[in-house]
Amino acid sequence: MDNTERTLIFNKAKEFVHEAGERIRKKIDDPRTIETKSNRNDLVTEMDQNTEKFFAEKIKEEFPEHLLFGEEGFGDDIKDLTGTVWIVDPIDGTMNFVHQKRNFAISVGIYTDGIGEVGIIYDVMQDVMYTALREGGAYKNGEKLAELTYKKPIEESIIALNTTWLLPENPHIDHIGVGNLVKTIRSTRSYGSAALELVYVAEGILDGYLTMSLMPWDIAAGRIIIEEVGGIVTTADGLELDMLNRTSMMASHPQIHSGVIEEFVTLKK
Amino acid sequence: MDNTERTLIFNKAKEFVHEAGERIRKKIDDPRTIETKSNRNDLVTEMDQNTEKFFAEKIKEEFPEHLLFGEEGFGDDIKDLTGTVWIVDPIDGTMNFVHQKRNFAISVGIYTDGIGEVGIIYDVMQDVMYTALREGGAYKNGEKLAELTYKKPIEESIIALNTTWLLPENPHIDHIGVGNLVKTIRSTRSYGSAALELVYVAEGILDGYLTMSLMPWDIAAGRIIIEEVGGIVTTADGLELDMLNRTSMMASHPQIHSGVIEEFVTLKK
Repeated sequence: MDNTERTLIFNKAKEFVHEAGERIRKKIDDPRTIETKSNRNDLVTEMDQNTEKFFAEKIKEEFPEHLLFGEEGFGDDIKDLTGTVWIVDPIDGTMNFVHQKRNFAISVGIYTDGIGEVGIIYDVMQDVMYTALREGGAYKNGEKLAELTYKKPIEESIIALNTTWLLPENPHIDHIGVGNLVKTIRSTRSYGSAALELVYVAEGILDGYLTMSLMPWDIAAGRIIIEEVGGIVTTADGLELDMLNRTSMMASHPQIHSGVIEEFVTLKK
Repeated sequence: MDNTERTLIFNKAKEFVHEAGERIRKKIDDPRTIETKSNRNDLVTEMDQNTEKFFAEKIKEEFPEHLLFGEEGFGDDIKDLTGTVWIVDPIDGTMNFVHQKRNFAISVGIYTDGIGEVGIIYDVMQDVMYTALREGGAYKNGEKLAELTYKKPIEESIIALNTTWLLPENPHIDHIGVGNLVKTIRSTRSYGSAALELVYVAEGILDGYLTMSLMPWDIAAGRIIIEEVGGIVTTADGLELDMLNRTSMMASHPQIHSGVIEEFVTLKK
């Protein structure tokens, strides 16, 4: 993708995201219908669906040759990342959207032949937009984010971590290792939106985010933004991410990435 | 305390908090000296100390007969809550202050003969102030907070919980019960500031906050604010809080309070 084309797509994508955000803010206090998906705590609202529909229409209108890979099923049937694919989570952190009416984000990652070109994460209620273009740096509301070049020992790290991964019966990761991680690092946090947790790593207000079960639309934009500040994003066991299927993830400051994985992560399968 | 006196104190307290917040915001990007207190992750900065000193001076000036019970040692030697006592945490969430430069709060609770009269929690970087007067309701930036009267089953609750309490070797609470709580509720969150977690419960964006080790200045203001919206604040085993010493705490929506304690909390001593 050449720079002119990429800039055009980037500008349109920002426009779509701002407009979608404005629509969500206007209806934030409306009564809502909440359904559940894979389990009783996997929530979905009309707003998730309507926002994805909005993106589907906008993309079709402006870039008919582009594809949409989305959470709610209004996109294309994606089997690989050939061509230009918008990987969209219309509301990342739906539980926060429902319970808190804040702390959720729109996440848009645009990939061409599998390479992340554009990442946008928009904290809708705070009106804060994080953006990145491949090899163009990462920005927060237009201000360049610093690279993660400072010293960061594991012992002084704050890592986002769900309490679930400390339960012995969780099917993904050995909880003893996670417990040792908790004892080693400075502290953990949990905000309930993967996209926001990823930009917090990029901003350096978190040093890492370790999780066992994300979908490509949770990661697509954040990964590009983190990589643009020199952070590292892989599966929880350090492998290249699969951008088509459910995956584990370790995203962090470069200095702690391999240490956390080697010392504390044992996946169960 | 009569209403006129209380209103006067409340207005002055808000003034002090706003001024202290302004001073912190001005210096938020200054290089800082970080020391540790009881352990390597219990941080304190000059800003904590200077802010408490600021409160000590202001209180002495305006209300020479009032006492200050504070974290950093610039207050009075408090053995009981006789008279009017300002219980102040100059920066609640010092780790967030250091690592994130946001998500910390000034917390001021004013007690007369042990009864909470005024509670103020100020999210400094967001410029959001939560306030309460005893029997006068709770407010967020001057807007009245709704009472916690809606239905809230434990299964649909989001509870703030540190990962520490899921470690078998934690000295305070049986981790199996905490694990069962995690499996039962909708989700957990962890924000790193007790004062903010308390006002989030008052606002209803969290349904509870369960923790094992807080000091009176972490709780003093938030307790008043939560009680003013009909929430319940006790020790983690349901007893009256000790406002002079380190304590456990369960603060929540009234409908889940006794259920969480009875079904999931077993303290180790």
